[in-house]
Amino acid sequence: MTDTSTRPAPTPTLARPVVPPGPRRGLGLGELTLDGGFWGRLQATNARATFQHCLDWMERLGWLGNFDRAAAGTTGRDRPGWQFSDSEVYKLLEALAWEQGRTGDPAVEKMLAAVVDRVAAAQDDDGYLNTCFGHPGRPGRYTDLSSGHELYCTGHLLQAAVARVRTVGADDRLVDVARRAADHVCREFGPAGRAGICGHPEIEVGLAELGRALGEPRYTAQARLFVERRGHGTLSPIALLSPAYFQDDVAVREADVWRGHAVRALYLAAGAVDVAVDTHDDGLRAAVERQWARTVERRTYLTGGMGSRHQDEGFGDDWELPPDRAYCETCAGVASVMVSWRLLLATGDVRYADLIERTLFNVVATSPRADGRAFFYANPLQQREKGAPMRPDAVNPRAEGSARAPWFDVSCCPTNVARTLASWQAYAAFVDAPADDEPAVVTLAQYAAGDVRVALDDGDVLALRVDTRYPDDGEVRVEVVEAPARPVRLRLRVPHWADGATLARGGPDADARPVAPGWADAGAALAAGDVLTLRLPVGPRLTWPDPRVDAARGTVAVERGPLVLALESVDLPDGVALEEVRLDARAEVRAHGDGALVRVRTVPLPGGGTGAPPFTSGPPVPAPDGGTPEAFEVPLVPYHRWAERGPSTMRVLVPTT
Amino acid sequence: MTDTSTRPAPTPTLARPVVPPGPRRGLGLGELTLDGGFWGRLQATNARATFQHCLDWMERLGWLGNFDRAAAGTTGRDRPGWQFSDSEVYKLLEALAWEQGRTGDPAVEKMLAAVVDRVAAAQDDDGYLNTCFGHPGRPGRYTDLSSGHELYCTGHLLQAAVARVRTVGADDRLVDVARRAADHVCREFGPAGRAGICGHPEIEVGLAELGRALGEPRYTAQARLFVERRGHGTLSPIALLSPAYFQDDVAVREADVWRGHAVRALYLAAGAVDVAVDTHDDGLRAAVERQWARTVERRTYLTGGMGSRHQDEGFGDDWELPPDRAYCETCAGVASVMVSWRLLLATGDVRYADLIERTLFNVVATSPRADGRAFFYANPLQQREKGAPMRPDAVNPRAEGSARAPWFDVSCCPTNVARTLASWQAYAAFVDAPADDEPAVVTLAQYAAGDVRVALDDGDVLALRVDTRYPDDGEVRVEVVEAPARPVRLRLRVPHWADGATLARGGPDADARPVAPGWADAGAALAAGDVLTLRLPVGPRLTWPDPRVDAARGTVAVERGPLVLALESVDLPDGVALEEVRLDARAEVRAHGDGALVRVRTVPLPGGGTGAPPFTSGPPVPAPDGGTPEAFEVPLVPYHRWAERGPSTMRVLVPTT
Repeated sequence: MTDTSTRPAPTPTLARPVVPPGPRRGLGLGELTLDGGFWGRLQATNARATFQHCLDWMERLGWLGNFDRAAAGTTGRDRPGWQFSDSEVYKLLEALAWEQGRTGDPAVEKMLAAVVDRVAAAQDDDGYLNTCFGHPGRPGRYTDLSSGHELYCTGHLLQAAVARVRTVGADDRLVDVARRAADHVCREFGPAGRAGICGHPEIEVGLAELGRALGEPRYTAQARLFVERRGHGTLSPIALLSPAYFQDDVAVREADVWRGHAVRALYLAAGAVDVAVDTHDDGLRAAVERQWARTVERRTYLTGGMGSRHQDEGFGDDWELPPDRAYCETCAGVASVMVSWRLLLATGDVRYADLIERTLFNVVATSPRADGRAFFYANPLQQREKGAPMRPDAVNPRAEGSARAPWFDVSCCPTNVARTLASWQAYAAFVDAPADDEPAVVTLAQYAAGDVRVALDDGDVLALRVDTRYPDDGEVRVEVVEAPARPVRLRLRVPHWADGATLARGGPDADARPVAPGWADAGAALAAGDVLTLRLPVGPRLTWPDPRVDAARGTVAVERGPLVLALESVDLPDGVALEEVRLDARAEVRAHGDGALVRVRTVPLPGGGTGAPPFTSGPPVPAPDGGTPEAFEVPLVPYHRWAERGPSTMRVLVPTT
Repeated sequence: MTDTSTRPAPTPTLARPVVPPGPRRGLGLGELTLDGGFWGRLQATNARATFQHCLDWMERLGWLGNFDRAAAGTTGRDRPGWQFSDSEVYKLLEALAWEQGRTGDPAVEKMLAAVVDRVAAAQDDDGYLNTCFGHPGRPGRYTDLSSGHELYCTGHLLQAAVARVRTVGADDRLVDVARRAADHVCREFGPAGRAGICGHPEIEVGLAELGRALGEPRYTAQARLFVERRGHGTLSPIALLSPAYFQDDVAVREADVWRGHAVRALYLAAGAVDVAVDTHDDGLRAAVERQWARTVERRTYLTGGMGSRHQDEGFGDDWELPPDRAYCETCAGVASVMVSWRLLLATGDVRYADLIERTLFNVVATSPRADGRAFFYANPLQQREKGAPMRPDAVNPRAEGSARAPWFDVSCCPTNVARTLASWQAYAAFVDAPADDEPAVVTLAQYAAGDVRVALDDGDVLALRVDTRYPDDGEVRVEVVEAPARPVRLRLRVPHWADGATLARGGPDADARPVAPGWADAGAALAAGDVLTLRLPVGPRLTWPDPRVDAARGTVAVERGPLVLALESVDLPDGVALEEVRLDARAEVRAHGDGALVRVRTVPLPGGGTGAPPFTSGPPVPAPDGGTPEAFEVPLVPYHRWAERGPSTMRVLVPTT
């Protein structure tokens, strides 16, 4: 084990997952210290509970032990876990690395080092590292590229190593392991090697970023090879799934939309952006931007969730967004943030920051239970039947979404949430380097109370104090604590839903001026003591589905700032069933805690006993104002904390009167 | 090959798939000669094209050759086809057996005998018969009860043999093979054998009916054992599927609703009814009736289609009926008819006949292309994207439902359609034996032009001539051609949708009296020359979804008699997209050929480029009467012939203005 006690403290600007070439950089983890708040609390729970929770489950199920057995040569036919279980260990390592980098917590370092020791011991002499393949009693290396997930696992190993390079430096045991694994991949699958790809993308994004972190162009070139090889139908089909399942149907640069398995599509897109940016391939970058736009506008849920089908954990057709069968896998939310963040750095377009916010609050934050020890895998927008309460010690075989489960048979989500929460700061702001006599620009993309201390390229510092209770309250107060002598421009994101936002400079509201959705310019003449006050209208608002979203016709949702709200059966009066509730969209919607109060009526429902399918010869519901019971108010709660009060039924999109 | 030339002609009353004990019997195939018409044409195409089509594909893919290889001992790891491919051969044999029994066609007999020879040669000495298991290079017998489908295949073999017993008698090579296979199953899985069940039910229904056909109570007892063993979680899980997938979660007599894989659930239910009736187990029968009622009223599509999910080809939750992702597997339609027919014979309840009609016209008849050489596997009620035209020589890997395919990788539907069409007559009418000085009752349950000649128990005959163009026209004229001297009651089904039906006795419409939905009594004093005229209102009518069917909210369907209609994009004016069409439900719907004309408007659709999910801050559509283009009429066509004119988009449930 490497002695880390003499290492320099983490570099505050470099501790970030994505460091593309170009003038725009994300915030280093050390450049923002959260002050509690929505994300600070999640991050604290993540560190306090989730890491150990994941470690315990992976120990219990033998996923960690698989490394010991591989090292000892005692693995065999009875190896526990799916073929991709190694990747969960690597994602936890990535989470630990970011946490350690952000906090310097020696307990986290100790936990990480102990796992790295076991992982490192399992690596073969030639750099190959996988506990499922290439051992006695196991299938041979790369004998099942379609389903084997070997390169997928390696990709996650490389991402974990990136976190180490960026927080403790390249002189690190995990980095050594990853470098040898990456070299092995380049030898095996390089231009002179086998022209294969992995059924599950991830190696691309791992190689590209490790290449950046270590300044190793071979890794970037290999990532490019993998991206270019894809889409030509070379993967052996998996049972009844089509090549679109793993995006092997159309070349990345030719595709117009994401399709097939959502996490696969999104990891691939993230890697493709990295490759495009590194190799100045504008066509490839434009392809991903095009795919993003069509997919977001036609195949994405109000929550930002992606994936309409359980069948292949995949995207549906355009406008196919059933609330009840929404898959919206937590990992697809994580992956969507990965893609949007890369595109934001590449383009500076505010739309990417808007989707990141939507997805973080309504998908990523929805997955973990308040105690950080159970998770949603799927995140549907409607729950028709109350799920049974989870047993605390059960592995949930499926991802049905009716209750958060401590662990899954396929348990990709907990560690994915863990690594994202541990590095949340990285997505909060970005810095544009000065160009053409223009000042550097610091842009706040997400809002949370805390201290920002941006190290500018020339050694100057812009320090800001952010005070806000966002998203519960729409006021974001930014005080300049320290500013360089020369100009630096500050921008604040006005979300696309924030009609009526204002920005005040100085303090008194009299100075407030309207700011349109987009990047609000707070000026470049900043001095210590300056105060900017952004007011975002986070009051509840009605949101209507596009008429082409068939499954949501006749419904309305309520949002409150960045939060999508939900109606849960536990909030209904006794004797009222969720299925008979209709929202009166003409009535005022009032704020209520971090949710809202809406006015509803109930409608009579047909009796049973027809012996025929549920379709009738007359319009189903009497006129809403005639004879139905009195209207009454019910509370809506933020979607991210539904099902925290025991089994319930739920809907985000509520039928209207 | 058995010489059949000296056999007696098929017994007209006995040639039917289900012969339960009790006073009620279905029509023998020989008791109704169709006179063309809807079903006569489908039956003719089935015989002329589909049999050979299926035979050719199974020859080409080696599914027939698997029997030769098993016989020759040359099967091995490279055996083609899924583990259940034998069952397709058996279902084709069943179709051929019914066809031969109905028509006496020697060409059909020859085709059948040639296949039987190959099947028989593959049977092991102890009666075991399966080309996938129990051979050198193949997994051992019954080593994979969850997925192996061995008993499932055997069940289909037994059903085919039942068709032979009932048409040519028990002295038949296929019957010999089946008897030995059934004896083997009883030895292997009997009370003293292994307490296993098959992951896919079917053996139950096969054993029960073969037991009836051969008077062999051991088979009935074995069927009962299989039914009783199910629902106790004894099957090993399949990957991520839950025990509900194969109905191993709840005992049959305890369950309230069908769930999991639809075809499995329905085959099991059919077998359970057989067992319940044979063993006078009223509790078991009531359980299936209860499951039928809740499933039909909450989990069944307007078409009669069952199965809301692609993921597990399964039922959804109550009210989960997405039109676009409707699976509605053709085989589930066939299986639903099997269950309803058994319940109809057991109870005499008209609701079962109503559902049979709905399912036959809108699921079973939808599957085959007009030429009988391509089939739908899934039968969704909405098609969002135009499918690519099928290549005539392609095996379609999936069951997506956008175009009929000549064959599937899993090709259960073509042969299931074939056996059902070949035996259609069996479901057209039934006879209640005289009881308590009451006359015998002949009930016409389905309508088609032709000659009915019912052999009554006492040797008397009731002969009827039915003239009708149903379902294109609602007039059904029944002339008594021959009647016994003593009373026999005649009843005619008035479908549940037929408000305003009339029945006239004599001829002139002046005599017509209203008849309510249900069984219309035409009296017991029948004499040759009597004419009854039933008039069913088959004009187009609007049908509205139950308000709990979320995915259909804000839409309306049009039905026309028993036919569900559909709007296809090929019938829209140039420049009008299906997604912008709204049906004006206040306007008159007019009959138009075998479909209808409806008045529609188009609505403006939001433009793209928002970069946000498809939800907006204002109600999506302006008031329908303000500023939208002129209303215009478009034709709807029967759902059963959609996609016959090339790729199109389609909807059954059309959004309203």
